[in-house]
Amino acid sequence: MAYLNENYLKLQAGYLFPEIARRVCEFCEANPQAAKRLIRCGIGDVTEPLPRAAIDAMKHAVEELGHHETFRGYGPEQGYEFLRSTIAQQDYRDRKIDIADDEIFISEGSKCDCGYILDILGDQNKVAVPDPVYPVYVDTNVMAGHSGPVQKDGSYEGIVYLPCTATNQFVPEPPKEHIDLVYLCFPNNPTGAVASRDQLARWVEYAHAHGAILLFDAAYEAYISDPAIPHSIFEVSGARDCAIEFRSFSKNGGFTGVRCGFTVMPKSLFARNEGGQRSSLHALWYRRWSTKANGVSYPVQRGAEALYSVEGRKQVRALLDHYMINAKILRSAAADAGLEVFGGVNAPYIWSRTLSGLTSWQMFDRMLRDLNVVITPGSGFGAQGEGYFRISAFNSRENAGEVGRRLKELR
Amino acid sequence: MAYLNENYLKLQAGYLFPEIARRVCEFCEANPQAAKRLIRCGIGDVTEPLPRAAIDAMKHAVEELGHHETFRGYGPEQGYEFLRSTIAQQDYRDRKIDIADDEIFISEGSKCDCGYILDILGDQNKVAVPDPVYPVYVDTNVMAGHSGPVQKDGSYEGIVYLPCTATNQFVPEPPKEHIDLVYLCFPNNPTGAVASRDQLARWVEYAHAHGAILLFDAAYEAYISDPAIPHSIFEVSGARDCAIEFRSFSKNGGFTGVRCGFTVMPKSLFARNEGGQRSSLHALWYRRWSTKANGVSYPVQRGAEALYSVEGRKQVRALLDHYMINAKILRSAAADAGLEVFGGVNAPYIWSRTLSGLTSWQMFDRMLRDLNVVITPGSGFGAQGEGYFRISAFNSRENAGEVGRRLKELR
Repeated sequence: MAYLNENYLKLQAGYLFPEIARRVCEFCEANPQAAKRLIRCGIGDVTEPLPRAAIDAMKHAVEELGHHETFRGYGPEQGYEFLRSTIAQQDYRDRKIDIADDEIFISEGSKCDCGYILDILGDQNKVAVPDPVYPVYVDTNVMAGHSGPVQKDGSYEGIVYLPCTATNQFVPEPPKEHIDLVYLCFPNNPTGAVASRDQLARWVEYAHAHGAILLFDAAYEAYISDPAIPHSIFEVSGARDCAIEFRSFSKNGGFTGVRCGFTVMPKSLFARNEGGQRSSLHALWYRRWSTKANGVSYPVQRGAEALYSVEGRKQVRALLDHYMINAKILRSAAADAGLEVFGGVNAPYIWSRTLSGLTSWQMFDRMLRDLNVVITPGSGFGAQGEGYFRISAFNSRENAGEVGRRLKELR
Repeated sequence: MAYLNENYLKLQAGYLFPEIARRVCEFCEANPQAAKRLIRCGIGDVTEPLPRAAIDAMKHAVEELGHHETFRGYGPEQGYEFLRSTIAQQDYRDRKIDIADDEIFISEGSKCDCGYILDILGDQNKVAVPDPVYPVYVDTNVMAGHSGPVQKDGSYEGIVYLPCTATNQFVPEPPKEHIDLVYLCFPNNPTGAVASRDQLARWVEYAHAHGAILLFDAAYEAYISDPAIPHSIFEVSGARDCAIEFRSFSKNGGFTGVRCGFTVMPKSLFARNEGGQRSSLHALWYRRWSTKANGVSYPVQRGAEALYSVEGRKQVRALLDHYMINAKILRSAAADAGLEVFGGVNAPYIWSRTLSGLTSWQMFDRMLRDLNVVITPGSGFGAQGEGYFRISAFNSRENAGEVGRRLKELR
C-alpha cells in the first residue's frame, strides 16, 4: 500500500480557526436566541467592502478576457510585471528600500507563501518560532517533517519556541543557541506588538552571526501608525542577505476573499547544500513558481495594482482608519472592563489577559455564553498564549461599539 | 548558513516552456521580419475569449464584494459549496459516477494540484510516470527528493518511466515491477492519446494488486469525442479506492489566466504509514488545504460555476468545437506534408514524428526558421519523445489555417 506523509499524523486535531467555527456553530444551534446577537471578533477577517478602485479594475480586467484584442491566457508564473514593478516602486524604492522588480513574487496570499517557502529550504534547518504564534508557521513545519511529536503543552519537539510575554513586551530577543530559520511577524498576529528598529537590527545581527534566515511576515505593516517603527525588515541595514519578507493585500485592501499577496526574495540571499556549496534562494524560488504554478488570476492582479493608484491609496487609507478606530474603541472598553490589554495601537488586534483564573478556552466560552461575542483563545497560538485572548478589530463600527458596550457586563 | 532544498539542484536547466520562450525571443530579436509572421503552436495556451457566462458571473461577483450586504471575506479553504456541489453533480453524479460534494477540492489549477498532492504522500513511494510526460509530474517529484540525479538522456534515477511509443499507441500497460504512485494523463498531453475503458481497468486492477495510487490527470477530458472513451478514472469500477483525479477549467472554459481547477479525492482512498497503519488521504488533503491556503478567489469560483449553466455549457461547447476543428485542419495538413501524425482526434494536441533524421529540437529550430511556427519539441517531454514534436490546436482559425498552408512548404 502506498505511503502517506506521516508527519501529518503528528498534527494536533483541528487547526485553530475551524475549531472555533465548530464551537460557535454548536453554541448557535443550542441557543438560537443568543445566536441572533452574536458578534464575531474571532478570526481576523475583514468586514468592509473592497475599495472601489479595486472593484473597477477587476471588472475591467474580467471584461478584457471576453474580447479577442485584450484576451490573456497564462501569465508569468511569478506575477505580471505591472504589479511587481508597482509594488517594488511604491512599497520599497519610494521609501528608500533597495528592492528590484524581479525580487517581488506574486502569490495567492501570505498564508500560502508561509507554507510554500519551505519547499526550497532544507530539512536540516533548525527552526524557531515566536510563542504565541500564527499556527501556520508551526503546522507547515510539522507537515514538512521538521519536528518531533507534539508535547503536552501543544508544542512540538525539535522546534525552538521564543517566548513572547508581557515581560519582553511580546518581542523576543535573539536566543543564545544556533537557529537557521526564524519566523518573525510584526506588527504581530496575535499580540499586536511591534518591533523597533533596534530590536530588528539585533535580529539581523544574529542572522549574520549564525548564517540564519529571517522569515519576516509583514502582513499587517499598513496598520503601523508610529513613524519610528519599520514597515519592512529591509529597512534594516544588512537584511538583504538574511531575510525574506511576506506581504498581503488581505488586511489593507480587504482581499481576504480575493486572494493576493507577495514575497520579497532578495537576489543577495544565499543558502547552502550539505556539501557547503552556496546557491541563490532567488533562483530556487523562481524555479518553484515556474514548476508549481501558473501565476495568480489576472483580474486579481489588476485589482491589487489598483490599490496603489491615487484613488486606491485613499480608499485603503479609509479602510485602515475604520479598523483602527474600532481597535481604539475595543481597547479602551476592554481596559475599562478591568482587563489588562496590549496591542491595538499599531495593529488591528487587541491582546488581553483573561479574567483572573480563567484559561483561554474558558474565557472563549465565557465571552460566547455571556456576551455572545466570539474571540480567539490565546492558547490556540501557543503555550505562552495561555491566559490571554485576542480581540479582532475587523468589524463594522456598529459591532465594535456594541462589543465595547457588552464588555461592561463582563465579570 | 541555512540549508536549501538541494533536490532543486538536481533539476535540469530551464523548465521546458520558459526554455522555448527564450529561444523564440532570441529568434525574433535576430529576425524582426520573420517575427511579424510568427505563429505559436507551442505552449498549450488557449487563445479565444472567455465564455460570456463566466465573464458576467465574475463581474457580478466582483461587484458583490463592493457592497456591505454581499461582501465576502475568507471562503472555505476547500472551495465554496456552490461550486463543489455543481461539479460533483454535473461532472460525476449526472454521469452515474459516485462522487460526493465534499470529495471535490477547488484549486488554482491542476498544475498546482499535481505538485501539491505530494505534500500528503510519503517519500518512500516508488513513483512511475509515462514517457513522454508533462514535465511537472517529474520535476515536482525531483524537488520532493523522490529521485536520484539526472542521467544522460534527461531521465532521473529512481523514477520508473513507462515508455509510450507508436507500438503501444502511446498508452502504457502496467509494469511487472511494484510501483506505489503512477501518473496517468488521458487524453494525453503531449501525445493526444486516449485510454480505453479496458486499458484503464487494467491499471485499476494493477493498483489493487500493488496497493498503488493512480494520479489521474483528466485536464483534457472535455475534448473526448468518442463516446466509448471514459472521461474520468472513476467510471472504472474499483477506482474509488485507488485513484485521485485532477481536472481543470483551463482548457474547457479557457481559464488559463483566470486559474481554477479541482481535485477529486474519494473518501474511500487510504494510504499507510511506515508502521502499516492506514489513514484516509481525504483527511490529510483536507488538512493540507486548511493549513496552507484560504481557498480560491471568490469571483473566480463564481466564474467556474457559470461554465455549468445552460448558457455556459453551450459556450464551452463552442470553444471546444473551435479548437477541435483547428486540430482537424492541422492534423490533415501535417499528414499531407508527409509527417506521421497521432492524436488530435480526442485531444487538442497533434503528436508528430519529426522529419527524417532530425532531433526534436532540430525540428523545433527548422519550424521556427523556415515556417516561423513555434511547436514543442517532443524530447522536452522525456527521452521517448525524442524524434517527435507536438502541435497545439489552441489558436485562432486563421492561424490554424495558415499553419496548415505553411506545412506544405516543409521539406
